[in-house]
Amino acid sequence: MEGISEATSNGQQTSNAQSKIITCKAAVVWAPGEPFILEDVEVEPPHKMEVRIKILFASICHTDLSAWKGENELQRAFPRILGHEAAGVVESVGEGVEDMKEGDHVVPIFNGECGDCAYCHSEKTNLCNKFRVNPFKSVMVGDGRTRFSVVDRRNGERRPVYHFLNTSTFAEYTVVDFACVVKINPEAPLDKMCLLSCGISTGVGAAWNTANVTKGSSVAIFGLGAVGLAVAEGARLRGASQIIGVDINPDKFAKGREMGITDFVNPKECSKPANEIIKEMTKGGVDYSFECTGNLGVLREAFVSTHDGWGFTVVLGIHLSPRLLPLHPMELFDGRRIIGCVFGDFKGKSELPNIVDKCMKGEININLDGFITHELPFAEINRAFQLLEEGKSLRCLLHL
Amino acid sequence: MEGISEATSNGQQTSNAQSKIITCKAAVVWAPGEPFILEDVEVEPPHKMEVRIKILFASICHTDLSAWKGENELQRAFPRILGHEAAGVVESVGEGVEDMKEGDHVVPIFNGECGDCAYCHSEKTNLCNKFRVNPFKSVMVGDGRTRFSVVDRRNGERRPVYHFLNTSTFAEYTVVDFACVVKINPEAPLDKMCLLSCGISTGVGAAWNTANVTKGSSVAIFGLGAVGLAVAEGARLRGASQIIGVDINPDKFAKGREMGITDFVNPKECSKPANEIIKEMTKGGVDYSFECTGNLGVLREAFVSTHDGWGFTVVLGIHLSPRLLPLHPMELFDGRRIIGCVFGDFKGKSELPNIVDKCMKGEININLDGFITHELPFAEINRAFQLLEEGKSLRCLLHL
Repeated sequence: MEGISEATSNGQQTSNAQSKIITCKAAVVWAPGEPFILEDVEVEPPHKMEVRIKILFASICHTDLSAWKGENELQRAFPRILGHEAAGVVESVGEGVEDMKEGDHVVPIFNGECGDCAYCHSEKTNLCNKFRVNPFKSVMVGDGRTRFSVVDRRNGERRPVYHFLNTSTFAEYTVVDFACVVKINPEAPLDKMCLLSCGISTGVGAAWNTANVTKGSSVAIFGLGAVGLAVAEGARLRGASQIIGVDINPDKFAKGREMGITDFVNPKECSKPANEIIKEMTKGGVDYSFECTGNLGVLREAFVSTHDGWGFTVVLGIHLSPRLLPLHPMELFDGRRIIGCVFGDFKGKSELPNIVDKCMKGEININLDGFITHELPFAEINRAFQLLEEGKSLRCLLHL
Repeated sequence: MEGISEATSNGQQTSNAQSKIITCKAAVVWAPGEPFILEDVEVEPPHKMEVRIKILFASICHTDLSAWKGENELQRAFPRILGHEAAGVVESVGEGVEDMKEGDHVVPIFNGECGDCAYCHSEKTNLCNKFRVNPFKSVMVGDGRTRFSVVDRRNGERRPVYHFLNTSTFAEYTVVDFACVVKINPEAPLDKMCLLSCGISTGVGAAWNTANVTKGSSVAIFGLGAVGLAVAEGARLRGASQIIGVDINPDKFAKGREMGITDFVNPKECSKPANEIIKEMTKGGVDYSFECTGNLGVLREAFVSTHDGWGFTVVLGIHLSPRLLPLHPMELFDGRRIIGCVFGDFKGKSELPNIVDKCMKGEININLDGFITHELPFAEINRAFQLLEEGKSLRCLLHL
C-alpha cells in the first residue's frame, strides 16, 4: 500500500526524523466528473507548521460531489485530491507544530483555526483569517505549492496534484496545515469520529450554536441528507418538541424517523406550498428552519415557513446559482432572521475535542452509527460517490 | 379651536362622562401630494379599549412624507389624517381601559403592544399580533370603522376620514387603541417626548436592542436624517469608538458632528464605493452598519461595509421598490448578518416609560434638543413637510 521513499524531503526542515517523501495511493480526479483513479502519489513531508496524516477513514460529503463534477468552474483545479471528512493518525509534523505529535489521533477540519488572528480571538465567528474554508484554494498557504505529485501517464511527466478544502483526504497520506487538524481523544472510535469532521458537526452545530434551538421549540428541516439529519439530531438533543422534515424523496423518511424527526412533508405530494402546510401544523410557523438543499426556491420556503416575529432560518446548502436571495427587504421587518452557517459555528480546534469527549462519556448522545449507511474499501470510491449521488447513502465510510 | 359637540356618542359606552363627539381641527389630506387642509373634523368618543388623546405636539417623519405622496399605492386611503410622532394628554378613555385616565401624559406608538398575545409574551419580538405597525391599515381594529369624519365641501356630505399607522396625530384630538398609547412621567417635557414616539426610539433602539452595539466598536450609518442621527446617539451612548456617517448631502455633517459622528463619507465625492473607503478606515469593515435610506444600492453598501465574520447590518429604511435583496445567499457564509428593525425593537408600553424616566434622571443622555431643528404652529404643517422634504429639517415640532 505505501512505502517511505528514499528521497529526502527537499531540504525542508521537519521535526520528525523519518519524515521523507511518502509514495502512497490516492484517489485522483483528472477532470470534472471523470472517475477517480487510484494513483501512486508522492506526498511531501510536512513543511513548517504543517502535519502529515495517515488517513484511516474517509467519508463523502455533497461538497466533494459538487467539486468532483466541477459545478463551480472557478474551483476547477485538476488533477486534484478531493475529500474533507476523515479521521486518521499523525504520521509526522513540520517545524513549529507543538500541539500534535506522531501517533496522535486526529480529524482534519476544512475550516481551520489558527488561534491567533482577530477572527479566532472573536467569539462571534469561527472563520479564521488564514485557514477558513475556501473552495477556490488548491495549494498550501505557506508557499502556494502543493504537497502531492503524480506521474501523468499521457506524457510520463510528474506534475503537482491540487489540494481541496484545506484537507484532501481521499489519500492514504495527506498534508494539512496545523490549523486544520484537531487532536482528539485516542480512545474515540476513529470510524465514527470521521463524521464529526464535517457533516455531523455542521448540522448539530447549526442547531446548537447558530440557531440555539431551545427546549419545546419547533423546527423544520428542508433536505434530509446527512446534514439535515444532523440538524435533527441537534434539535432533538436540545429538546425541540416538533421536528418537521421536508424532502421530495420519501425514502428518506424512515431514516428521519429514526433520527427523531416527528413529522414529514413531501412537497411533491402537497397541493399547496410547504410553508403553508408547516404554518398549519405549527400555529403560524416554526421557530427555526434549516435550508440544507442549496436550492433557492427551497430557501424561500424555509424562510417563510418560520413564525413571524422570531423565525430564524439557517442556510446550510451551497448555492451555486448566480441568482440573488429571493427575499424582499421589507420582509426583514416581519421579524424573521436568516443567517449562514459554516461548520456549525464550531471553532474546530477549540471545541471538537470537548465534543468528542462528551460523546465518549455519553453526555452527548449523537447517533453517529445511524449516519453510516454503507462501508466500502477505499478502492471502491467511485461506487461510494454513486451511492451518494443517487441519494442511497447518507455516509459511506471508506476504509483506507 | 375645539368644542365638545352636543351630539352623544352614538350609544357607544365609555367610562368617561364628558366623552362626546369632539369637533376640532385636523390636517386632512384629500389626495396624494395635495396640501394638507385644516378641516373641522368630528372625533368620536373612544370605543371599548380605546383612548382619545388631546395632541399637544406632533412632528413629521419620512413615513408621513411617503404616505402623503401616496408612494405606495396600496396605502392610498383618502381623505386621511396622517402623523404618528406626537405627545399629548388623555382626554377620555373607553370601556375597559384601566392603565390610563383623563389627564395622563402620553405618547402614541404606531407599533402597539397589547401585552397579551404570543408575540407580546415573547422576548424575541416587539411586533404585537393585533396592533403591530401596519401601513395598510386605515380603520380601527375594533369595528373596522374610522373615528373621524368630515364634511366634503364638494358635495356637502359627511364622510369618514381614514386613520394612519394606528395613531393619526395631525389632529387636535385623535382616537387610538389602548395598545398604541404609552403613559409617561407627567413631569417629562412633552415637546421632547414627542420625538420618542417614533424616530429617536427607532434609531437609538436599533443601536441598543437590535445590534447591541458594544463599547469600542465601529459603526457606519448610511443616511443622516433623524433616524440615522438617533442611531449615532445610541452608538455614542454605548461607547462606540468610531461612528462613520455616510450621506450624499454634506450639509448634514455639521449636525452629525454634534451628534457624535466621528468620520464622514460623502459617496458623491469618492472615486470608489463607500464600502471600500470604510474598510480602509476600519481595518476590514465596521462591526455594525445601519441602512437608513430605503435605497437598495445603499443597503448593499451597508452590508458589505461590515467586517466579515461578525458584521451586523440593521435595515431601517423603508424599501418601496419591488426589487429583491441585492445579496447572494453564499454571502451569508461570510459571517455577515442582516436584520430588519421596527421601532428600535422596543416594546413600547413596557419599555418607553422607563426610557423616559432615565432621560429625566439624566441616566440616559439622549440629545433630544439637537433633533428639533424647527418649531411651527400646527397651521403651518405644509411648510413643515416642505422643510423635511428639502432635507432642511430633522424634526419640525408642530404646536397644536
